[in-house]
Formats: sequence, structure tokens, C-alpha cells
Amino acid sequence: MAAIQASKSSTPLLKDELDIVIPTIRNLDFLEMWRPFFQPYHLIIVQDGDPSKTINVPEGFDYELYNRNDINKILGPKASCISFKDSACRCFGYMVSKKKYIFTIDDDCFVAKDPTGKEINALEQHIKNLLSPSSPFFFNTLYDPYRDGADFVRGYPFSLREGVPTAVSHGLWLNIPDYDAPTQLVKPRERNTRYVDAVMTIPKGTLFPMCGMNLGFNRELIGPAMYFGLMGDGQPIGRYDDMWAGWCTKVICDHLGLGIKTGLPYIWHSKASNPFVNLKKEYKGIYWQEELIPFFQSVTLPKDCTTVQKCYLELAKQVKAKLGKVDEYFNKLADAMVTWIEAWDELNPSTGLANGSAK
Amino acid sequence: MAAIQASKSSTPLLKDELDIVIPTIRNLDFLEMWRPFFQPYHLIIVQDGDPSKTINVPEGFDYELYNRNDINKILGPKASCISFKDSACRCFGYMVSKKKYIFTIDDDCFVAKDPTGKEINALEQHIKNLLSPSSPFFFNTLYDPYRDGADFVRGYPFSLREGVPTAVSHGLWLNIPDYDAPTQLVKPRERNTRYVDAVMTIPKGTLFPMCGMNLGFNRELIGPAMYFGLMGDGQPIGRYDDMWAGWCTKVICDHLGLGIKTGLPYIWHSKASNPFVNLKKEYKGIYWQEELIPFFQSVTLPKDCTTVQKCYLELAKQVKAKLGKVDEYFNKLADAMVTWIEAWDELNPSTGLANGSAK
Repeated sequence: MAAIQASKSSTPLLKDELDIVIPTIRNLDFLEMWRPFFQPYHLIIVQDGDPSKTINVPEGFDYELYNRNDINKILGPKASCISFKDSACRCFGYMVSKKKYIFTIDDDCFVAKDPTGKEINALEQHIKNLLSPSSPFFFNTLYDPYRDGADFVRGYPFSLREGVPTAVSHGLWLNIPDYDAPTQLVKPRERNTRYVDAVMTIPKGTLFPMCGMNLGFNRELIGPAMYFGLMGDGQPIGRYDDMWAGWCTKVICDHLGLGIKTGLPYIWHSKASNPFVNLKKEYKGIYWQEELIPFFQSVTLPKDCTTVQKCYLELAKQVKAKLGKVDEYFNKLADAMVTWIEAWDELNPSTGLANGSAK
Repeated sequence: MAAIQASKSSTPLLKDELDIVIPTIRNLDFLEMWRPFFQPYHLIIVQDGDPSKTINVPEGFDYELYNRNDINKILGPKASCISFKDSACRCFGYMVSKKKYIFTIDDDCFVAKDPTGKEINALEQHIKNLLSPSSPFFFNTLYDPYRDGADFVRGYPFSLREGVPTAVSHGLWLNIPDYDAPTQLVKPRERNTRYVDAVMTIPKGTLFPMCGMNLGFNRELIGPAMYFGLMGDGQPIGRYDDMWAGWCTKVICDHLGLGIKTGLPYIWHSKASNPFVNLKKEYKGIYWQEELIPFFQSVTLPKDCTTVQKCYLELAKQVKAKLGKVDEYFNKLADAMVTWIEAWDELNPSTGLANGSAK
């Protein structure tokens, strides 16, 4: 398979087709380390918390910044679907972007090194993942068959080797692993030191825990499903924003025949968040999840759901019908899912039309 | 999770509970390189081809050897289910073993080195894989959560963290990758140089191409499904023996709630087989497979199939009913599957009884 020759070209891959979305409450000094890789790209910064605070962005970066006042102004009453005081607010950035691809990263994530000591251009690897197909219908034991030096192994059906378009690239983390509060409490010293040199497609029909810390996706293919839910201020849970987006996205990708890859690239996750605070945010999610997973595992979308928007609205309906009884919160969330799609289509009228708008 | 401390113990893991099965047509000089790792274990050598030929086994190995005459004598007319002039004959070794675990390896596979230059004890890694649980119901992005330094990530349902028993450990190959004839022809120089430091569970509902070159399994849990079919002499195909076993095994593991792991350990695969010969063996398989995969993807086993034997006989019935029309070969294969189970139960009467014998 033809490899994508990123490092050899002088122009960064997808320079004018990708936005980097960063949710933050602080100065973005972490960008200094990313300068060689991110500076050619446009940044969308979503400022969380107090809008009167000034966020410093290092010199030389091309960016737009939205604080809560901006979000309220742009979305009006529909701003209710965007979380406040939670990094879930990042999904506002997906909505206002006009680009085909999104890369989103947390501001406590730094450049990692591969085992040879070379600094990893995480963004470039995400782009490679997104520009090569996925293989969700059959497992390839040598991992991503589209990488240089790899292929489909004996016994892999030839009819499936063309693959499907890749909608999502899920990257991983060295140093502080993305553990839940109970695991953080039990293993306070555990660090992820294992560099696994693999990218793979998550098989169709299998759910996974999507982390929003280091994530790329094709906004045109899957953007409207990347809603990070209602978390933080005034909500009963936190830290399930990316999980929720991941479950919805996986179910919709499976339905529409799109692929999700996970593995490379790694970033260096610098700081473990406070496990006690996390436990408070998570504990309802931990038991609700036991009902959410069977729901997402068994959900089916009707054939006439041919766009992401239609799929997402159908999912919202089923969330209300089946999860409303778990907790009143899911009725609110289902309503917010609908509001999210309305807001998306308002800000992205052409895609709304192109997709045959599900409104 | 408690790690299995193999390397630190003086007695090799499962020394009296595991047989190493080797199909061969030549002297077993390759065992010299494996001596430090294999010598404590018992070998079952299945001699393929001319039974009058003498196979030399290096000094000091504890082994039993079966040639075609032995197989015919032991199984009588049921020997028809064991392939001749094909490494598929190895499954006879699974049947005559009295041990709980099997490791099978090809005689062109040597000891590989990890990236630090250390020789890999493939058998020890297989045993570790088999003795730790699998997680087939949900994908863990940091790979095997039961390995040292890893765990379940945030968002992994707690109710699923106990895992399920591991039935199969599928190892990989450095140097010559396990490609089909067309890929061999197109990429004659491709070598696998990527050491991926991961073990993972193949998710429930996902099929994979199981290679028999470097494979461990729990004979007590899944043995009767490890039938390598009718290949070689007098048969229209070859090189689908392990694939067939893998599809049957995966479907049955999914039904019985057992796990299959793939990834580490690597062996060094020394020699590419002749792609022209391989093409001749494979070509029918290549197009039949396009009907086999949808069959295995959609097969369901009834609830009263509670033992591997019952599952396997039910599968044989469905193979006859649904694949007989693809080619007459599958009727023959379905009959051989039944014969295989009869022979298995004859040689393993206690497991037959314990499992409530499906005869």
C-alpha cells in the first residue's frame, strides 16, 4: 500500500484542512514544546471557566479563542448544550471549525519520545491514521495492514482488503495513563512506560473507551457525533464526556461503515489529576455505565439513518426512551443531543444540506 | 493484577501440564536452539509423509513420535480425518496428548530476539497468556490489562474486569510474515521487523486468521475445536488448515464465553515457503473463503451446546447444510469433523464424559 510521505514533504500534511482544538483554563505555555509540529496549523482555543480571565497564547500561533461569553453569543439559548467548567466544552470548537479534520489535545499533554529517543509528531501520525483506511470487519494479526512493512496476513479475505474510510484516530499516552479514580487510588504510582508500536482498527461491534486527550477525527465524516455531552457545572457527573462521545461515535461508525483506529501516536501526559476530585465526578458514571454499555451494545439504527445527524437524532430518541429510567439526567442529555445537532446544522448549513439535514 | 512469576521460579511453568506438538518431515535440528526453553517439556512429534523415513531428534529431549502407520493403527478407519502430506496432521498430536495445555510450533521457527537483544522464551509467554484472563466484551486501549504495568483504562466497565478464561494464545512471527501466496508474489522481499510489545484479546464477534505456526491453547477448554481439517494429499486445498481451526474455535469460544489472545510471543520464522506451490494449494480457498467468512460471521449455536464437542458437532451440521453447496469438499469436511469428535472422545473418554459427551 502507498505510504503517506509526510515527513519528506516540505508542506505539513493537511495544513489548511485541519484545526487543532484545545480546551483550557490557563496560559498555553505547553504549546512551546509543540511549536515545530503545531505552528503551521490553525488553533481553536475554547476557554473554560471565568471569561474575564486572559489566556496567554505563545507568540506566532494562528488562533481564534472562544470564552463562555462568545459561546453564549454565538449559540444563544442553544449554548445550553455546551458544558461549562469541564473540558467537555471542547466540542464547541468542533462545531465552529470550518475544516475537514480536527485534532484535539489537552494542555497537560507534551511531546513524547519514541524508543529511539526521537520526538513524536503526534499530529502527523494522526493524519496518517486518518488518511489510510480502516479494517473493521476482520482482525489483522499484524495490526494496521496499511502501514509500511505490514500487510494483510494469510487468511484475510481479499474482498475486505480495500477497507473503509477512517473517521477517528485515537492516540495513547505515555507516563500518566488514563485511569479512572478507583484505579488511580489503588495504583498511585503506575506509569505507562510501554511504547507499543501499533495502530489498529477497533472491530465492528466492539465498544471502546475513547479518551479525548489526544484525538483526531474527520469532521466531515463524523463531526456531528462528537458531542461531549453535559458535564461539569450543574451536572451530576464529569469525566464521561469523551466516553459518551466515543460510544455514540462507535455505534454510528459501525452503522455507516466507517472505521476507528487506536494506538499510535503517543503523547506525554504530564500530570495525574486528583483522584479524590475525580471520584466525586465519576462515581455516578461508574454505576450508570453498567446500564449504558448494554444499551450501546444492543442499539440498532434504522436503515434510513444515512447521515450522522439522522443517526445522532435517532440515538437521542433511544437514549430518552431507554436510559431515561436510569436517571432523569439522561432525559436532559437526550434533549441536549438534539440541541447540539440543531446548533451544528445552524453553524454548518452546507453540511446540513449536503447530508439531507435530519431536522 | 498479580503477575505470573515465571522467569523467577526454578521450575518451568506447567512443566507436567503441557505438551509441545511438532509436525515434521525432517530431522528436528531446530530444537537445538530451543533447548533451554523446551527441554523440560514433553514433545509429541507427528511425522508427516513417508513413515519409513527416520526422523532424528536431538539428544536429551523427552518425546513420543507418531508416523502415518501409528496414526492408522491407533485410529483405524477414523484415521481418515487426519490429513496426510500436510502440516494439518499436527492435530493428531492434540488428540493423543493427555495434558491440559498444548503448544505447537513449526520446525522452521527459531528463537527470536526482543528489541533489547534478549532471546524470547516464546513458550513462557504463551503460558502467561493462557494463565491470565481475556477481555473479549470491551476493548481496552492499553492492550492486555492483566500485564504488569497495565490495567483497564477509564471508561472500562467494572463488571467486565474479571475477564474470562483464556483458551487460545496466538503468537506472531518476525522475519518472514505469514502471507498468502498472492501477497508473497507481490512482496517477495517484505520482512516483518516490527516488534509490537502487546498482547490483546480478540473481541467477541470478530473473526481472525489463526496461524498454526506458533500457537498455544488450553486443550481442556477448547481442544476438540482445534481440528485442522482435511488438507494435503487427495484434498483440493491446503494452507487453510489453521484458518479453518481458527474460525471454528473463535465461534465456539464466543459462544462459550472463552477468550483468545494474540500478539506476543514472537518467533523467528526463517524460511518463506514457495509462493507458486502455495498458490496452487490456496487458490480454491481464496475464493471459497469469501463464502466461508460470512458463514462464520453469522453462525449461531443453540443454547444447549454447552460443551466444545456439542458445539463442534452442531457446527459440522451447519457446514454441511450451508457450505455443501459451495463445493462437495465441504460435505466431506463436515463428515470428517464428526469423525474427528468421535476419535477425540474415543481417545479422551474422561473428557467426553465430563463434558457430557456429545455423541
